Amino acid sequence: MTVGAEILCIGTELLLGEIVNSNSQYIAQQLALLGIPHFYQTVVGDNPDRIHQALEIATSRSSLIITTGGLGPTPDDLTTEAISSFFNTPLEERAEVWEHIQQMYSQTGRTLTANNRKQALLPRGADILTNPIGTAPGMIWEPRPNLLFLTFPGVPSELYAMWEQVAAPYLQTKYGQGTFHSKVLLYWGIAESALAAKVNHLFDLQNPTVAPYANYGQARLRITARANTKEEAIALIAPVEAEIREITGEHCYGTDDDTLASVVGKLLQEKNQTLAVAESCTGGWLGEAITQVSGCSSYFVGGVISYSNEVKINLLSVDRQILDQHGAVSAIVAEQMAIGIKQKLKSDWAISITGIAGPSGGTETKPVGLVYVAIADPMGNVEAIELRFNPSRGRNWIRKATVSSALDLFRKRFVMIG
Amino acid sequence: MTVGAEILCIGTELLLGEIVNSNSQYIAQQLALLGIPHFYQTVVGDNPDRIHQALEIATSRSSLIITTGGLGPTPDDLTTEAISSFFNTPLEERAEVWEHIQQMYSQTGRTLTANNRKQALLPRGADILTNPIGTAPGMIWEPRPNLLFLTFPGVPSELYAMWEQVAAPYLQTKYGQGTFHSKVLLYWGIAESALAAKVNHLFDLQNPTVAPYANYGQARLRITARANTKEEAIALIAPVEAEIREITGEHCYGTDDDTLASVVGKLLQEKNQTLAVAESCTGGWLGEAITQVSGCSSYFVGGVISYSNEVKINLLSVDRQILDQHGAVSAIVAEQMAIGIKQKLKSDWAISITGIAGPSGGTETKPVGLVYVAIADPMGNVEAIELRFNPSRGRNWIRKATVSSALDLFRKRFVMIG
Repeated sequence: MTVGAEILCIGTELLLGEIVNSNSQYIAQQLALLGIPHFYQTVVGDNPDRIHQALEIATSRSSLIITTGGLGPTPDDLTTEAISSFFNTPLEERAEVWEHIQQMYSQTGRTLTANNRKQALLPRGADILTNPIGTAPGMIWEPRPNLLFLTFPGVPSELYAMWEQVAAPYLQTKYGQGTFHSKVLLYWGIAESALAAKVNHLFDLQNPTVAPYANYGQARLRITARANTKEEAIALIAPVEAEIREITGEHCYGTDDDTLASVVGKLLQEKNQTLAVAESCTGGWLGEAITQVSGCSSYFVGGVISYSNEVKINLLSVDRQILDQHGAVSAIVAEQMAIGIKQKLKSDWAISITGIAGPSGGTETKPVGLVYVAIADPMGNVEAIELRFNPSRGRNWIRKATVSSALDLFRKRFVMIG
Repeated sequence: MTVGAEILCIGTELLLGEIVNSNSQYIAQQLALLGIPHFYQTVVGDNPDRIHQALEIATSRSSLIITTGGLGPTPDDLTTEAISSFFNTPLEERAEVWEHIQQMYSQTGRTLTANNRKQALLPRGADILTNPIGTAPGMIWEPRPNLLFLTFPGVPSELYAMWEQVAAPYLQTKYGQGTFHSKVLLYWGIAESALAAKVNHLFDLQNPTVAPYANYGQARLRITARANTKEEAIALIAPVEAEIREITGEHCYGTDDDTLASVVGKLLQEKNQTLAVAESCTGGWLGEAITQVSGCSSYFVGGVISYSNEVKINLLSVDRQILDQHGAVSAIVAEQMAIGIKQKLKSDWAISITGIAGPSGGTETKPVGLVYVAIADPMGNVEAIELRFNPSRGRNWIRKATVSSALDLFRKRFVMIG
């Protein structure tokens, strides 16, 4: 059976530009992974007539319609109602959904309102698309042959959980005929265009295909193979991955779901070594990134957020005279911070960060975007690296890029020492 | 003249999920600022038939169609061609555009190819929408009365420059007659459905309108007014806002671009008091959130990431016996952490966090999702609050919600003390 998918996002907040449509991107990626062709994305507001009109168009050209949004308990959550009325099918309350909703509320101590009951309604004949983490389920419904609806809430975390646990296996079984498999190679410290130039000759490959993309300063290469089985796809990807790794060397820090923090964590775990951090301008973001990795307590001991100079002096033993002479944003202060935290927390390694994230606080000699990262290693060496980010990127871009750069510098230093 | 806008994004990369559709969000925001109603967003790939089909639908329901993408020099850049052929209008080379393209290339030392010449083609009768920073211009074209096209490249920076310098003033002149203005009220600690139930009676208002929405556990209410001037719109919003605030009380922490961290920052700044943090399971995220606010150095001194027990003992003076007896995740340890960091960093206030973010580490009596937040105040009082999050939300959801809850608890405590 051939299938053509359409994503229909329902929510006035998208039309007002209050949020970016990350759900469409997620579903698009997931459809690509399943090998399901997808030709249209539509957004309409919480308006019954326009939802009907969008359904008319979508049902005339697509055989798989995936909606997000409009499943909540409030009066402007209209998706289920609109779809069922479009097909002249009555809504019915599902006892098990209503029970689940009551349970979710009692667990978290919130108060149920009459509104919530409407979330238990589904069109007659529709199956429940279980929501493992929220109150509102979606539905899986084939209102007529060759036309399938899947509905999801607009909350991304709920969409992801429902997709991965219910929708993906369901769609794989229904439409599976061969599979797409992708491997993503992750890069830090090289621009997308420079990376693309290195592997230009691979972009014409047909199976697997190689495509570059970038996200928040992180360049990536996606290798995608189509085959009868996942194993065959993996075998097609392997030689191309090897060739790319040969060309791009140490810039590639990991694949797929790896993060710089998880890669650093694996390195430390393998050697049974520990890490501590001292952060000024990033204010805890490096620690936050490291502790995103479950199980990090086996190598991460903690750190100090030394936002003020007094904290640098009192908790990290930075020399007051050095601070006065060189300023808080200097290579030597970064080095003293790294040594200080390493000694204080008795860790094998330490990373320190001091910089000017802006928008204020920059000077001619020390502009916004100037950052020092220092790494102290188990042999007692310490080295500060100067980074310069484009001030026009803004405070939080600079802080985020600093955290990634610090982890990447640590990774390279760790691998070099061996 | 009434107008209804539609955004049509053209690009296979959007259908593959390679990039998020930030252009739609940007244009949506800009249209809202101009008071131009906007009802549909569509995405299609670089496919001539489907672009034609999308044009058929869009021209039948919208009077202002804004396209992004497909203006580049490569064979799969089809937008200009598709629009002109849809209206049976010939393309003509514009000498000034071709000169601009040649100039741009010679300036940046790139080599022109035959492909680039196609970027100088526009339908007969269309005006040039100047691109101040890239090679490809867009067009402003009214192919028939009451139907206006504006085309933009897909590169966000070029879209922004063209919008701000050319399109916005043009649209303001053409359609300017009144404006939309919105105010968003922000909530923490109350579910979207409970909030909606409290202000249910306001959802039928016509001008201003009131609508609820939620984002990452944060409930919001949007009040939107249409009026001739921004001032009139603000005046329409004021009484409705006052009524909502009266009903929803302390749950409302701020408006529009406020964050919990910026609100906390303002409170501290007003009283000229300082804050320090001690974090376990959030690993620095609270500090990161606080330091997102530019200028936070006037009230935020820093903190300790006490991921291991040793750090709690050595840097925060938590009692080892208490730790052994009650465990790291306990009210008394949270209180000792808050007192410890407050004394160590000589701050007026302190917030501490200790909890089990999971997915491992939970027990029957201390499950994943159990968190203690303690707040130490300038009078020397300290109090721990127990929070319980749904473990199925996952590690990072729990951590993020913990950070928001800690800031909200601090805000309420601060206001209570007065």
